[in-house]
Amino acid sequence: MSDVALLQQLIEALKCLPGVGNKTAQRMVFHLLERDRQGALVLADRLHEAVQRIGHCKQCRTFTEHEICRICASASRHRDQLCVVENPSDAMALENNTNYRGLYYVLMGRLSPLDGIGPQQLGLDELEARLGEGQVKELILATNTTIEGEVTAHVLAEMANKKGITPTRIAQGVPMGGELEYLDSTTLSYAFAGRREFSDAE
Amino acid sequence: MSDVALLQQLIEALKCLPGVGNKTAQRMVFHLLERDRQGALVLADRLHEAVQRIGHCKQCRTFTEHEICRICASASRHRDQLCVVENPSDAMALENNTNYRGLYYVLMGRLSPLDGIGPQQLGLDELEARLGEGQVKELILATNTTIEGEVTAHVLAEMANKKGITPTRIAQGVPMGGELEYLDSTTLSYAFAGRREFSDAE
Repeated sequence: MSDVALLQQLIEALKCLPGVGNKTAQRMVFHLLERDRQGALVLADRLHEAVQRIGHCKQCRTFTEHEICRICASASRHRDQLCVVENPSDAMALENNTNYRGLYYVLMGRLSPLDGIGPQQLGLDELEARLGEGQVKELILATNTTIEGEVTAHVLAEMANKKGITPTRIAQGVPMGGELEYLDSTTLSYAFAGRREFSDAE
Repeated sequence: MSDVALLQQLIEALKCLPGVGNKTAQRMVFHLLERDRQGALVLADRLHEAVQRIGHCKQCRTFTEHEICRICASASRHRDQLCVVENPSDAMALENNTNYRGLYYVLMGRLSPLDGIGPQQLGLDELEARLGEGQVKELILATNTTIEGEVTAHVLAEMANKKGITPTRIAQGVPMGGELEYLDSTTLSYAFAGRREFSDAE
């Protein structure tokens, strides 16, 4: 058997990754030591760099190594649309899969009073101030369709209405490939209530 | 969306881990940046240390940060038993789940001519020399029960026989909790052919 000290320390350290338990960490360690020591060194350097240099965008709160992130700084984005998401990965998903050309606002969470996450933690004051500047015309609410995401969307919609800004919510309904008989009742009733005139153009 | 440069570099670097693709790597990055920057720094340090300081035991070829690993160096292990395994993780599994008190020999692979893995790569010459020293009385073949593991075991058994050492093979049969009707035919025929007298003492 291998010596415990260093190996075990590395196994423990790998367990800080989400979804990585003892067995997986062990497999990772042996893989790296046997087959990819160079990769391990690169990973170590990247981790250091990322932790030291990546902070939050002053405008949209997402992760960035600059003061203002690439999207907020871009001259070609529409500044009258602001899309609110819970996490940077949500913004990344929208960015990769839609042709949205407006800006984002990343809450870095959702309203969850029981976990101590309130308006302050999500930067809602800064968002309100920004909506007051008059540039934003549409506030797109793209929080998750969980209970907490819905509550957050409601609060944001109220905020937009007060400022005379149109809040919109991403559509809820049957996902692509969905079979009605296996759908949960909430989704089905949302989809039915939200039906629209059928058009071939879509 | 977050800036691509550093984030994307870290995502790419994480993909050197086995079983980690783009999505998982992305989830890991956001988790580390949002919730465990300290853990990421510790991980980076451990990776560096491990890659720089962990090499192979001069006696059994397993991973260790010393010349000779803890088990080979221990005075309390039986030096007349030598258990051959394919990988350090196999030795670790035996060590954690059996009360074996002998020594190990870690091939760091299995005979696989098509992949260019022959006797040299597995240190079979060193093993043969060691068997010639006369200290080892039993060579326990604990390579995997795959085709390549079986072939490797056969070669090792031959080597042991030539030196007048008893080769033994870990038992093959029905695993605990196994139901006969779902077992593959090879395992079942091995288990049947390898039946032993039933004793309550076991």
